Amino acid sequence: MTTATDLLALDAAAQDLLFRTARTANAFTDEPVTDEQLRAILELVKWGPTAMNSQPLRIIAVRSPEARERLVANMAEGNKAKTAAAPLTLIVAADAAFHEHLPVVFPIKEGARDALEASPGRPAMARLNTAIQLGYLIVGIRAAGLAAGPMGGFDAAGVKRDFLAGTDQEAIAVVNIGRPGPDAWHDRLPRLEHDQVVTTV
Amino acid sequence: MTTATDLLALDAAAQDLLFRTARTANAFTDEPVTDEQLRAILELVKWGPTAMNSQPLRIIAVRSPEARERLVANMAEGNKAKTAAAPLTLIVAADAAFHEHLPVVFPIKEGARDALEASPGRPAMARLNTAIQLGYLIVGIRAAGLAAGPMGGFDAAGVKRDFLAGTDQEAIAVVNIGRPGPDAWHDRLPRLEHDQVVTTV
Repeated sequence: MTTATDLLALDAAAQDLLFRTARTANAFTDEPVTDEQLRAILELVKWGPTAMNSQPLRIIAVRSPEARERLVANMAEGNKAKTAAAPLTLIVAADAAFHEHLPVVFPIKEGARDALEASPGRPAMARLNTAIQLGYLIVGIRAAGLAAGPMGGFDAAGVKRDFLAGTDQEAIAVVNIGRPGPDAWHDRLPRLEHDQVVTTV
Repeated sequence: MTTATDLLALDAAAQDLLFRTARTANAFTDEPVTDEQLRAILELVKWGPTAMNSQPLRIIAVRSPEARERLVANMAEGNKAKTAAAPLTLIVAADAAFHEHLPVVFPIKEGARDALEASPGRPAMARLNTAIQLGYLIVGIRAAGLAAGPMGGFDAAGVKRDFLAGTDQEAIAVVNIGRPGPDAWHDRLPRLEHDQVVTTV
């Protein structure tokens, strides 16, 4: 681990904060997560690159008791209690209508909006780039000193109906955010070995 | 920007290194990117979370002149020259056979491998989680003081044929890595406004 650290420009404390000691939390304290904190996180991670600067990630910040109840009803059984108790929960959605913004966010390629409008690959491009941005977002939540609890176990059709009706958006994850509470995580699970991941040709 | 920084635990220099001053590079110096650097990057970002600890991201590190030539032939016209000139290029692939590792990496859910084996959603789950890991990887490349040049413009079928034949892997991106060279990037493109991304309910 020392060797690895020496090869990185990022200082060891930041490495720990973002990756090494950071953990997916399943329990949180009561400390609120404010709109200002969420804004600070997004102001940082918005700079992460996406294909054609497409930025298809959209967020529904679920705050009101009524909205939270609607969301919890759509969560898988094992995710209900922790989602009901989290200080803040985000629905992370991929916006297949991202191309409408291209004339502003990607002006360097004329006709990009119209080419994407006609492309059957647009929803898949939205999902892929939203997932890349979700990676940045999880790092950003940790950069704020908070713990993220990303979850894939929810009724996507129900979330679409209850939160995203009338849009081109599709939920790809639900993420709890807060300070980790007592017994917030299980033992760390093993990672694949380097040679199981990387092949050099 | 000062306000934002104050709300984050990550120090400002690290914020700049990873997000604010970091840029997608289109030109690189001749300085090599070593296997040890790549290993250090992956040893850091491997800790980022994935659904069911699935870790479907696989990397083909394209080093030999022959392999590089094969890859360049599959790149879109505008990506050929920079890929040919980059110190190191990675093919980032999603492994739909990730479930074979679940008995080791996700032992807490018995039967997970078999349930996924039978699931038609497995390739989509692989793509989604690989893209999340690609987000971590881009952050990790920057953490090493290097610039990343992720690209979606390539012949995916050709890359499959030439690099991933006989596997369940599918390329989702190609990423150049190196120190940024002269005129490595264009002007920064605009990001969406906060209210275009976030809705609070």
